[in-house]
Amino acid sequence: MSSTFGRVFRVTTFGESHCRAVGAVLDGCPARLPLTAADIQPQLDRRRPGQSGIATQRREADSVTILSGTEDGLTLGSPIGLYVANRDQKPEDYADMVAIPRPSHADYTTLMKYGVKASSGGGRSSARETIGRVAAGAVAEKLLRTWHGVEIVAWVGSVGDIDAPAVDTQTLTRDEVDRDIVRCPDAAAAARMVAAVETARDRGDSIGGIVHCVCRNVPAGWGEPVFDKLEACLAQAMLSLPATKGFEIGSGFAGARMHGSVHNDPFCLKGDRLGTVTNHSGGVQGGISNGEPILMRVAFKPPATIALPQATVDCDGRPVTLEARGRHDPCVVPRAVPIVEAMAALVLADMAVRQRRMMAETA
Amino acid sequence: MSSTFGRVFRVTTFGESHCRAVGAVLDGCPARLPLTAADIQPQLDRRRPGQSGIATQRREADSVTILSGTEDGLTLGSPIGLYVANRDQKPEDYADMVAIPRPSHADYTTLMKYGVKASSGGGRSSARETIGRVAAGAVAEKLLRTWHGVEIVAWVGSVGDIDAPAVDTQTLTRDEVDRDIVRCPDAAAAARMVAAVETARDRGDSIGGIVHCVCRNVPAGWGEPVFDKLEACLAQAMLSLPATKGFEIGSGFAGARMHGSVHNDPFCLKGDRLGTVTNHSGGVQGGISNGEPILMRVAFKPPATIALPQATVDCDGRPVTLEARGRHDPCVVPRAVPIVEAMAALVLADMAVRQRRMMAETA
Amino acid sequence: MSSTFGRVFRVTTFGESHCRAVGAVLDGCPARLPLTAADIQPQLDRRRPGQSGIATQRREADSVTILSGTEDGLTLGSPIGLYVANRDQKPEDYADMVAIPRPSHADYTTLMKYGVKASSGGGRSSARETIGRVAAGAVAEKLLRTWHGVEIVAWVGSVGDIDAPAVDTQTLTRDEVDRDIVRCPDAAAAARMVAAVETARDRGDSIGGIVHCVCRNVPAGWGEPVFDKLEACLAQAMLSLPATKGFEIGSGFAGARMHGSVHNDPFCLKGDRLGTVTNHSGGVQGGISNGEPILMRVAFKPPATIALPQATVDCDGRPVTLEARGRHDPCVVPRAVPIVEAMAALVLADMAVRQRRMMAETA
Amino acid sequence: MSSTFGRVFRVTTFGESHCRAVGAVLDGCPARLPLTAADIQPQLDRRRPGQSGIATQRREADSVTILSGTEDGLTLGSPIGLYVANRDQKPEDYADMVAIPRPSHADYTTLMKYGVKASSGGGRSSARETIGRVAAGAVAEKLLRTWHGVEIVAWVGSVGDIDAPAVDTQTLTRDEVDRDIVRCPDAAAAARMVAAVETARDRGDSIGGIVHCVCRNVPAGWGEPVFDKLEACLAQAMLSLPATKGFEIGSGFAGARMHGSVHNDPFCLKGDRLGTVTNHSGGVQGGISNGEPILMRVAFKPPATIALPQATVDCDGRPVTLEARGRHDPCVVPRAVPIVEAMAALVLADMAVRQRRMMAETA
Repeated sequence: MSSTFGRVFRVTTFGESHCRAVGAVLDGCPARLPLTAADIQPQLDRRRPGQSGIATQRREADSVTILSGTEDGLTLGSPIGLYVANRDQKPEDYADMVAIPRPSHADYTTLMKYGVKASSGGGRSSARETIGRVAAGAVAEKLLRTWHGVEIVAWVGSVGDIDAPAVDTQTLTRDEVDRDIVRCPDAAAAARMVAAVETARDRGDSIGGIVHCVCRNVPAGWGEPVFDKLEACLAQAMLSLPATKGFEIGSGFAGARMHGSVHNDPFCLKGDRLGTVTNHSGGVQGGISNGEPILMRVAFKPPATIALPQATVDCDGRPVTLEARGRHDPCVVPRAVPIVEAMAALVLADMAVRQRRMMAETA
Repeated sequence: MSSTFGRVFRVTTFGESHCRAVGAVLDGCPARLPLTAADIQPQLDRRRPGQSGIATQRREADSVTILSGTEDGLTLGSPIGLYVANRDQKPEDYADMVAIPRPSHADYTTLMKYGVKASSGGGRSSARETIGRVAAGAVAEKLLRTWHGVEIVAWVGSVGDIDAPAVDTQTLTRDEVDRDIVRCPDAAAAARMVAAVETARDRGDSIGGIVHCVCRNVPAGWGEPVFDKLEACLAQAMLSLPATKGFEIGSGFAGARMHGSVHNDPFCLKGDRLGTVTNHSGGVQGGISNGEPILMRVAFKPPATIALPQATVDCDGRPVTLEARGRHDPCVVPRAVPIVEAMAALVLADMAVRQRRMMAETA
Repeated sequence: MSSTFGRVFRVTTFGESHCRAVGAVLDGCPARLPLTAADIQPQLDRRRPGQSGIATQRREADSVTILSGTEDGLTLGSPIGLYVANRDQKPEDYADMVAIPRPSHADYTTLMKYGVKASSGGGRSSARETIGRVAAGAVAEKLLRTWHGVEIVAWVGSVGDIDAPAVDTQTLTRDEVDRDIVRCPDAAAAARMVAAVETARDRGDSIGGIVHCVCRNVPAGWGEPVFDKLEACLAQAMLSLPATKGFEIGSGFAGARMHGSVHNDPFCLKGDRLGTVTNHSGGVQGGISNGEPILMRVAFKPPATIALPQATVDCDGRPVTLEARGRHDPCVVPRAVPIVEAMAALVLADMAVRQRRMMAETA
Repeated sequence: MSSTFGRVFRVTTFGESHCRAVGAVLDGCPARLPLTAADIQPQLDRRRPGQSGIATQRREADSVTILSGTEDGLTLGSPIGLYVANRDQKPEDYADMVAIPRPSHADYTTLMKYGVKASSGGGRSSARETIGRVAAGAVAEKLLRTWHGVEIVAWVGSVGDIDAPAVDTQTLTRDEVDRDIVRCPDAAAAARMVAAVETARDRGDSIGGIVHCVCRNVPAGWGEPVFDKLEACLAQAMLSLPATKGFEIGSGFAGARMHGSVHNDPFCLKGDRLGTVTNHSGGVQGGISNGEPILMRVAFKPPATIALPQATVDCDGRPVTLEARGRHDPCVVPRAVPIVEAMAALVLADMAVRQRRMMAETA
């Protein structure tokens, strides 16, 4: 039940860390959208392991195949099947971990839930599950760009205690974000972030970070007034990503410290539409977009897999010292950037399709 | 589509600020649960306007009637209809606001979405919509207590810049929370918070705050591994509340600043089950509960309705000065406490029912 | 989970035979549709018990109240709460039936499913549950008429072995259907049907029948190609009604006896659109409407409650003779006519709203 | 939205007639069920084209691959991805059909709905879409057999006007059904049916038929009392299959001609459970299974593709004579047998999983 996301523009993902393939079925995508694998591969490449010295050194091509739903480069309105083969690497890395639940991993809770877990890797909690999301998110982005010129850009705003200075969210591009391997558009902060990741990695440790995201050109009227508020669906989307611990829209937790006279966003005229002078709302009021940029932040904890020895207990409660092997990311936020963009796109595309209907109705 | 929440234990709310009634239909509640209106009314009373000097002075009894789904004090397994009459007060308070969208309210976005909005009050964005949630949440709590002894306690942790010291989340009770009208269990902080709210109110301003929540005795195994991670559903639940801007589980944004060697929660033996030494995870790993207390925080912005004059524009873009009248909360967090508890209960009850099924399957 | 129907235009019903009220919440109805209780009451009156000598002599006013979702006679786009009070009549009629499951009733299966059942009447299997459907269906009809001029007319085609001759489905009206209390538009057949019902009633027996239904002016393009084929959703809708045993669209079972050269509906020009020369398809091809009238038939078994003594066993398997008391319909089809119309309207309104979206997308 | 079926045990299919692959993702299957491709392939082989002289002579291996969701021959509780490659055969067969909508095909309605259609074959309306259903249905059957010993057997009861005599639904096996290529277990009737199909085929015509189905060992308590009545979900399942025109449960349309005193199924003791003396109900009362065999019938129209010339019009309304080429089934019912079984299994598995939950709750 938990593998489907969205109400009308719906993605269902499948695949574990070491099965034959991971992928997604995307149902509810409108017909006649131009779409080929070339629209999808770039975001998979940005998500791919092994892309830089601060990411895991596992190497996977993660090449996508479209199985269904398009013909002659156009969508048919039918479900789009997407598929990325797994390279099988099961045996060596995980063999002796079965009896010792890794701290802050999903091993223990998966076992408590299902009475069984994949013998290796993270099963459905694996980061490889996000491949289906990124592939489907790329289709969502294509739809959003084609229909409305929506632009979605995420970037690394913090690594550990290192915060990047504010960026110009009106103009920031993915090229600017990708100039540095840590995906922070501020060169000086990026350099310090890379050093912090490298230090953590070299110590056998890991480090957390914060991903920021802006969605521009979202028209007013997307999102629904009660349970499917735009910010509520974005919050679910982001907290459904592995390793996330927090979500903010607009002023976020800082907004809780403010007075209304400061926090309120007065209206003003922006060309032929109403806009707001400030944007503490983060582009959303009452759960519905107001035409201003949507601004959010997502907190990622430090990865749970570390090389440093950990004093814990095994499944029977006996004290053990766990030392992880294998190749893992010391910090997930650089690779999380395209994943956050994908989840934002999936939420917005669903709302776009739902609102198209409303506009037709009320017209 | 947006008025239903939950997958198996499902609540559908109805009602606007000034229609005949607000309420909910709760489908998927198991049969044979003891239930009467007396299980529901106390949380509605804690949510009710006019309950203290720092809440809105509107007075509404908000008395609940169960329309269906129970007989002789037991649930039948059929949908539970719940209903609270509205006291009609439409005319005077809102008359001249129609043409001027209130800053940081849902007026403008509702109009952009539907091409129409309720002529007064907040429509579906009204705080009165939360009555259905609180009523249904009380049923969810009854189920969780009866089945598993789950305890849910929320409290005010911050008002503006005033932070309460850490509380003992293992023992905190609602009685302790309710000792002060601001619903902060620390008496000294509470006094300062009340003063801050009164100051804001007297200046015609409003102020934000943060609600904390703990859920105790949640067994391991609740929540699903991908899109319906427990924290993802809690995040959606909380961000679907009016005026919320942020959500944290466990270490939250602070966790993003930590190293894995510190953040990881080693396992230990707690009686006959595995527990964790620390709880940075907030009771959830890989989207599934691990048996530790679930800890979360929700940021509420300052209410948008303030008496201070605001320079804004009307629907045609003409500059106007808006001065709100009426009786409104200068700070929502005291009354938000039972609402946060209700949303936590709705998420957990849905997961409980879904996991009952899993346990049956794997047994 | 089973109390909600529809994907976008969604109705959730509540209420058992003897609780305080029955009703529905209708979510997903577009804004700005003219709607008052006067749009809903007529179909409830056609469904009401006690309306003729061949219906149950219980008398219930079944007067509807709109609780939410409209203002000044227009829908707001928010959930429409609908409510009909039950007249409490619990005690006398059902007292000693608890220990003896009534043959072909839901008593036994409800008990096996829930471990409990309402102490009287049919619980959720009661015909009173259909009140919420009829009320919501009337809103759906208003939408369909307003947007597309859709006309839905059901009638009694058979009672027992008495079949009415074919009617002109292009012109048949509800007034013509209602000319006779059995709701068969052919006067001669109607007279024989009434006699058959009266004979069954006077013998303490009951009798089955078939309801036919036509939906006119449905545009081409409604319905979806796979699981939500228009005929599949209609089949679910009709078989979800109490006492139904079969469903046919277009040629139905007779079509299974035909050759393709006869059954195929060749296209022809009808004004400015393509139509078909014959209509064996019943207005649907590949699950999607083709612009021709939608034609279906629903089989209703004879009511299970009969006054004749029945040899059966009690819950412990001991032989007993059951003699039912109370006032019951000897034949459900006359009162089923507005219920079939309601279910057809709910399916079509959902498809209409879903297709509005598609049209917007592909335009 | 229309490509997903089921509420908890959910299948999503993908694929058109001529894309790279067809398949399904099955979410909600419990963990630890023994499952390999060998559980799935036999039903795909029974569905496969080219298996006999009365089926289409297209030859496709339809070999299934499990992509995810199992390890070491056991399910993991995660989504099961299933995949069958298409053999590409696009060019020659369909080239000149684009401008002429085939009578009683989905060409015209698909075009009206989406503004585009697959250039060849039936797109999503293709019989190849049912491959995903059959594969997922085989998993559902494995679950039902493993948990409850449920047996599902469908057979051909009629071809054109040829009706097989009643069979012993208590004992009928698939082996008995498969003894004849037409899948009618009565040898004499089967011979006449084969002759009827051959005659139709040789004339360039097609012929309809009726598939019967029995589900044995279904425990009491499956199905839900209102919209998700067991018979309602079965009706949707069957009417969602291509070429279906009618559905009956138990007494079906014949039941509408009966009196209650005859139609009612009195209870009796069968071993340690209550059973019924007769089974006009078809194993379902009030939407919930009663422990008796579930009996249903599905009407299939004659295939729309015939070699005989048809007088119709093209998209512009100009009269044309259409002569189909290619290799098509003259009668679908023999190959529909495993598809009907699959759909029955998908409905029952969903209800089984949902009821497991209920049993846990009420225990």
